[in-house]
Amino acid sequence: MYLSLDGRGPRYAQLIRALKEAILDGRIAAGTRLPASRALANELDLSRNTVLIAYDQLRAEGFIEAHVGSGTWVAALTLSPKPKAPRLAVPPQSRYARRVRRTHERRLGRLHRGLRYDLQYGEPLTNPTIMKSWRRELTRAASDVHIDYPDPRGLPALRDAICGYLARRRGILAQRKDVLIVSGAQQAFSLTARVLVNEGETVVLEEPGYFGLRQLMQAHGAQTVPVRTDSEGLTCTSLPTRGVRLICVTPSHQFPSGAVLSARRRLDLLRYAGRRRCWILEDDYDGEFRFDARPLAPLRALDQCDCVIYVGTFSKMLFPSMRLGYMVLPEALREDFLAAKWLSDMGTSAIEQAALANFMSGGGFERHLRQATRTLKARRRALLGGLRRHAGERVETVDSPAGMHVVVWLRGYSRAAAAALIERARRYELGLYSIAPHYAKPPSRQGLLLGYAGLPASDLEEAMQLFGRCLDEQRLTPPS
Amino acid sequence: MYLSLDGRGPRYAQLIRALKEAILDGRIAAGTRLPASRALANELDLSRNTVLIAYDQLRAEGFIEAHVGSGTWVAALTLSPKPKAPRLAVPPQSRYARRVRRTHERRLGRLHRGLRYDLQYGEPLTNPTIMKSWRRELTRAASDVHIDYPDPRGLPALRDAICGYLARRRGILAQRKDVLIVSGAQQAFSLTARVLVNEGETVVLEEPGYFGLRQLMQAHGAQTVPVRTDSEGLTCTSLPTRGVRLICVTPSHQFPSGAVLSARRRLDLLRYAGRRRCWILEDDYDGEFRFDARPLAPLRALDQCDCVIYVGTFSKMLFPSMRLGYMVLPEALREDFLAAKWLSDMGTSAIEQAALANFMSGGGFERHLRQATRTLKARRRALLGGLRRHAGERVETVDSPAGMHVVVWLRGYSRAAAAALIERARRYELGLYSIAPHYAKPPSRQGLLLGYAGLPASDLEEAMQLFGRCLDEQRLTPPS
Repeated sequence: MYLSLDGRGPRYAQLIRALKEAILDGRIAAGTRLPASRALANELDLSRNTVLIAYDQLRAEGFIEAHVGSGTWVAALTLSPKPKAPRLAVPPQSRYARRVRRTHERRLGRLHRGLRYDLQYGEPLTNPTIMKSWRRELTRAASDVHIDYPDPRGLPALRDAICGYLARRRGILAQRKDVLIVSGAQQAFSLTARVLVNEGETVVLEEPGYFGLRQLMQAHGAQTVPVRTDSEGLTCTSLPTRGVRLICVTPSHQFPSGAVLSARRRLDLLRYAGRRRCWILEDDYDGEFRFDARPLAPLRALDQCDCVIYVGTFSKMLFPSMRLGYMVLPEALREDFLAAKWLSDMGTSAIEQAALANFMSGGGFERHLRQATRTLKARRRALLGGLRRHAGERVETVDSPAGMHVVVWLRGYSRAAAAALIERARRYELGLYSIAPHYAKPPSRQGLLLGYAGLPASDLEEAMQLFGRCLDEQRLTPPS
Repeated sequence: MYLSLDGRGPRYAQLIRALKEAILDGRIAAGTRLPASRALANELDLSRNTVLIAYDQLRAEGFIEAHVGSGTWVAALTLSPKPKAPRLAVPPQSRYARRVRRTHERRLGRLHRGLRYDLQYGEPLTNPTIMKSWRRELTRAASDVHIDYPDPRGLPALRDAICGYLARRRGILAQRKDVLIVSGAQQAFSLTARVLVNEGETVVLEEPGYFGLRQLMQAHGAQTVPVRTDSEGLTCTSLPTRGVRLICVTPSHQFPSGAVLSARRRLDLLRYAGRRRCWILEDDYDGEFRFDARPLAPLRALDQCDCVIYVGTFSKMLFPSMRLGYMVLPEALREDFLAAKWLSDMGTSAIEQAALANFMSGGGFERHLRQATRTLKARRRALLGGLRRHAGERVETVDSPAGMHVVVWLRGYSRAAAAALIERARRYELGLYSIAPHYAKPPSRQGLLLGYAGLPASDLEEAMQLFGRCLDEQRLTPPS
């Protein structure tokens, strides 16, 4: 209890004044239970009698209420709040802040909330079994919680589990010391920008690409160069001929287009980076959820000159609320990234790391992945089937053998018509999302990014029925 | 399981080659259990028969072992690891990385490990009761874990609990929207640097002061100006007359000297910041652990022009492994900090936030604080008593009414003698720590920073006995 006695007059009077003031200006809210007289006396180094006198007086004046056996409470007085200090409007205080204000575009919230059918991309796959297993691991980790500062590199057990996982499932050979645990992929991007890129230097981004990465690089002050992607992923022939510091790619499942970077392009890209001595950031955000049998080797596994920074995340594979990801780092950059991580937050919190390490080494994680892949495959089938039946030729669906979303292009739609369609769908409790935010320049045609992980197959079928109805109605509406 | 089939010859032969290769180059380690044939067939889109043939062949060749009822395992072969790509030594890739390499001085590890009496500052107060309560809260939070992306500002329930706590105990009136949850105080510093300071701009730091903050500001590229502290804290008259962007202070308990910033200096500092339009970072890292009755109002509570950024942390009050802290932000900076936090890591992981919110709103947290303060007071008394008895006049102890550490100056010691003393103590299983790392310029006298939170009073008494013995022996050693 923060109370400042003013030193004037007897102690009990000082305490009364201090308590009144605290109650009147709202620091101690109505309904708050006051400490027992002995505890408060102890804390303020007063005699208990002094506190009892003060409590008595305040009760007499109606500031507090005492009930036998349940302690002393602050009464519900009608208080006027203290006037606030006038708002101090300030310009951005750093170049970073100026860029943030320019690029951040208020994308923190979700477009829709509480809709019956929300096709938000990034919704996790809800699955009662995995929730149960995960709770069990967390509870186990809680009973064995480390209390000291965590290793800024991440828990050794988790880094080992990740190495085993990467070797078995992604064909990447890494050792514990190559792995840095981070608080989600976004932190990996942020550290990469700091360690590798100066203000004004060139970073290649896929077009379209993940907006969170673009905003981060622009806020960092990088010169971002969007490079076109097609059905084979990043078009390597469109890369700038010089001056590139970093290339950010999603080879196993281009976000958001869904393309897989072809084997030829993988080698082209590595050759480009090797010759021009630039770095590659390989974001393998959902490469694990593949529905065909032939995953291509990640760039990191093909890398001969140690220029690929591989980033993996557990947000997509488990839950977004768990902010955990990892980087596999080139040897030459390891210490710089570790220092940057330490300076950023001294290391990621330990408990979820411990739970995940157990979950991975016990085999539960890979069992979950297999099961989740089956579920996603079924949901994808339901979505695509529904699209065929209810949207038919009015949309063009991009096929993709992986992931948790589908891209749908709206044939003959203007920007205004697409916005109207999304608004119409919202009134039917159907949450649709434009692909436009993931483009640096507005795309020439209108498209939607439909996430299907969060809804069961039957809901997806119903959602597509609603989608078809919205398309029907939209056709009957004259353009505004 | 990541396996790349080469497409040559029959499927089973491709699978055999792929599995052999994976076993030989260590991607699948000896002792790994292989998936059941049906599961692998499913995953690779092969017939189950193909997998059975491949498994049979590999067993015949001794690559794998099968035991009835317990599955198929990779045999223990003697493998030579694949040769590694040659190390690519690179110069720092950004100005940030160059500064990091210059300033980071490899301070990631602890100086001592596993000593019987380790007086490491920052060791948490181990307390079985609090561990038990905290585990209970974590388990509760685990059973109700949020799965969606967390609010980047932090969980509303936690921000509300912090507001109540700040009002009651620190005299700070804040609303939910003023509070930003961060992953520890270090992240608060890092965000502050980014939002407020450009490369080359001036940041005032206390001398001595926390080295993690100094390193961060230097890595960020700030021009750091150390300003002397004395027994009343930061000497405001030594502040630069102009060009200051940010002043970082620890008013309630100067780190590491232990001084409390006097009321007069608090007002001077606020006046300075108001007139020169610079910002104040108030780091209240352990202000809660006070052993006298008169905490002074934090700067944030006295701030009339909304220029104070208040930073609190739970690492000291609970456990360092829990990377949770918070900022109370001036209204004008709120959105910029929120954007910077989102771009850094999209928000802090939810589970510990949920556990802490419950712990705080249920009253357990403040009960813990009261109890911890009593415990720390007793440990401090034991340490000071031991120092008086066993070190006597050979050291000068700085008194301080708060915290978890004590500063001790070694009378007549050279730098080399102080280092020898620390080394000697280590051989007696006593971990001592120099104060020097917390100085920007080497201090004119030698001192130690003794943390007492991690050891019970009886151990501290014994530790001081050992300390006295080391001082005795050191006196008998001729200077090297």
